Amino acid sequence: MTERHDIIPIDSMDILPYGRAIFYYETDQMGIVHHSNYIRWMEEARLDFLNQIGLPYDKMEEEGILVPVLSVNTQYKLAFHYGDTFSINCKLEKLSGIKFTVSYEIYNAETRLLHADGITEHCFVTKKMVPVRMPREYPEIYQRLLTFKEH
Amino acid sequence: MTERHDIIPIDSMDILPYGRAIFYYETDQMGIVHHSNYIRWMEEARLDFLNQIGLPYDKMEEEGILVPVLSVNTQYKLAFHYGDTFSINCKLEKLSGIKFTVSYEIYNAETRLLHADGITEHCFVTKKMVPVRMPREYPEIYQRLLTFKEH
Amino acid sequence: MTERHDIIPIDSMDILPYGRAIFYYETDQMGIVHHSNYIRWMEEARLDFLNQIGLPYDKMEEEGILVPVLSVNTQYKLAFHYGDTFSINCKLEKLSGIKFTVSYEIYNAETRLLHADGITEHCFVTKKMVPVRMPREYPEIYQRLLTFKEH
Amino acid sequence: MTERHDIIPIDSMDILPYGRAIFYYETDQMGIVHHSNYIRWMEEARLDFLNQIGLPYDKMEEEGILVPVLSVNTQYKLAFHYGDTFSINCKLEKLSGIKFTVSYEIYNAETRLLHADGITEHCFVTKKMVPVRMPREYPEIYQRLLTFKEH
Repeated sequence: MTERHDIIPIDSMDILPYGRAIFYYETDQMGIVHHSNYIRWMEEARLDFLNQIGLPYDKMEEEGILVPVLSVNTQYKLAFHYGDTFSINCKLEKLSGIKFTVSYEIYNAETRLLHADGITEHCFVTKKMVPVRMPREYPEIYQRLLTFKEH
Repeated sequence: MTERHDIIPIDSMDILPYGRAIFYYETDQMGIVHHSNYIRWMEEARLDFLNQIGLPYDKMEEEGILVPVLSVNTQYKLAFHYGDTFSINCKLEKLSGIKFTVSYEIYNAETRLLHADGITEHCFVTKKMVPVRMPREYPEIYQRLLTFKEH
Repeated sequence: MTERHDIIPIDSMDILPYGRAIFYYETDQMGIVHHSNYIRWMEEARLDFLNQIGLPYDKMEEEGILVPVLSVNTQYKLAFHYGDTFSINCKLEKLSGIKFTVSYEIYNAETRLLHADGITEHCFVTKKMVPVRMPREYPEIYQRLLTFKEH
Repeated sequence: MTERHDIIPIDSMDILPYGRAIFYYETDQMGIVHHSNYIRWMEEARLDFLNQIGLPYDKMEEEGILVPVLSVNTQYKLAFHYGDTFSINCKLEKLSGIKFTVSYEIYNAETRLLHADGITEHCFVTKKMVPVRMPREYPEIYQRLLTFKEH
C-alpha cells in the first residue's frame, strides 16, 4: 500500500484540517458537547490524517498493525454547542520506530476560535499486542510517516 | 460452561431484574437520557440475563458463537433524568434453532413506573457470520436457553 | 426562520441523502458497527433532513420546540465495517398536528446495498414536555413540514 | 443539602472505590475497551465520589452549580476486555475557591493490576457559565469538599 515512488513530497502536499458539524447526541444536559467526545473527534482527525497521507487505518489493520493509545491529554477552553462545526488541525509531532505522538488544535470552524487542544501518544503492535518495530518490519509505512512528521 | 447436570430448574430460579444508576454522559441537551442509550441498556440487561442463566457471553464468543442483532423495537413512554435508576425485566420470548427474541420492560427503580419497553431479535453465527444451528452444534447451550424461555 | 414566501416547492427540491464514513469508535469487538449507532445515524439523518428543508433543529429548540422520540424500529440486514461509508434516505412519512413519523433506508454508499431500514416516531413538546399543537402554535413550521411529507 | 452538622469526619469515613463490569458496547474492533470510555468511567467515579461525600451532582445542578471539565490526562497501561470488571480509586487532589483536581487509578477488580491512571481539572460555574466563588457563595459545599481533600 505504500510503495516508495508514490510518496508525495511534504512541500507539495498540505494536510487538510478535519471537521464536521456536531451531532445532537454529543451534547449533555449542561447544554454543551460532553468532554469525552473530543477524545473521539481526535481519533476521527488522526485517522483522517493517516488517510490523507496514504495510510488508511483499515488497510493497516488488515496488514496486521494495530495502533492503540498510550496516553491522552486534552485542555478544554471553550464549550461547543449543537449547531457548531468543529475543525481540527492534526500534526505528527514525534515518531520513533515503535511509537508516535500526535497534536491537535480544535477550532470552531465559523469563529476560528480555539476551543481545545490535545496530544495523544500511540504505539504500533500486532493483533496479539506485541510491539512492532516499524523501520524493520514495515519500512515503507515508516518512511511515509517520517515524511509527514513536523520538523 | 454448560454441563447438563448444573442446569437449575426454572421453578427454583428467578431471574433478577437488571438495573443501575443513570450516567451523566447518557443525558443530552434536552435534559433527559438520549434515546439511543436505551438500546445499550437493553444489551446490558440481555447479557446480564445470559450471565444469570449460566451462559456468559464472553465465554460464548470464546467458543465461537456470536449473537448479532437482527432488529430493535423500542417504545419510549416516560423520560429518564440524571439521578434516576432504571430497572429492566428481560424475558426470552422466542427461541428457534437459529434465532431468538428478547423482550424488555424498563422501569424507574424508585417510582416503579414503566418508562419504556422493547423487543430485540438475534441470530447465532460464527465469527465468519455463518449461521449456527444451535440444537445440533451446541445442544447444551440450546437446552439451557430453552429452559429459560417464557411459556 | 420559516416565512411562508421562502418555502421551496417540493418539485424543485430534492432532499439529498445523508451519509458519512464510519468512525472507528463505532465498531465493537464483533468487528462490525455496534447496532446502537444506527439509532444515532438515524438522528443525524433526521436532523440533516430538517436542516435541508429550512428547519434547523437548533433554531427550533431556541423557539421552544423539542422533538423527543416516541419509538424506534430498526431492521439490521447487513453489517457495516470500519472503512465503509453509509448513506441514508430519510422520508417524512406521516404528520399530524402533534406527531410525525420518519422512515430511513441505510445503504452502503459504495455497494448501494441496503444494510438496514427503520422508522422513528416523534412528538412536538415544549421545554416543560407539554405537547405543542403545531398548526395553531407554529403554523409556518407546520406548513413547511407538510410540504415535504411523502404522498 | 450540606448542613454543617452532618459532615462526617474524614477519619471515620473511607471512600469506597467505584467499579462495575465492562459493557459489550464499550469494546471496539481491536477487541479491547475503546480508550474514550475511560474518560467516561472517570466521570462515573467522580460523580460517585461526590455522592459518597454527600454532594450528589444532580442536587448541585439544581442549586445552580455546574462543574465542567477543564482538562483530562490519562495514561493507558493495560487493555480492558469484555468480561473484566474495573475498579477506580478517586481522590480530590487540589481544591481552590473556583477549581479542583481529581486523580484516578483504574484497576482490574480481579487481578488488582493498574490498567490506567488519570487526572481531571474542573471549575465551578453557573448555568450561564459564569465562574462561582465557592467559599463565599456556597460555603457549606466548599467546606464539605475541603474535608475530603487529600493532604
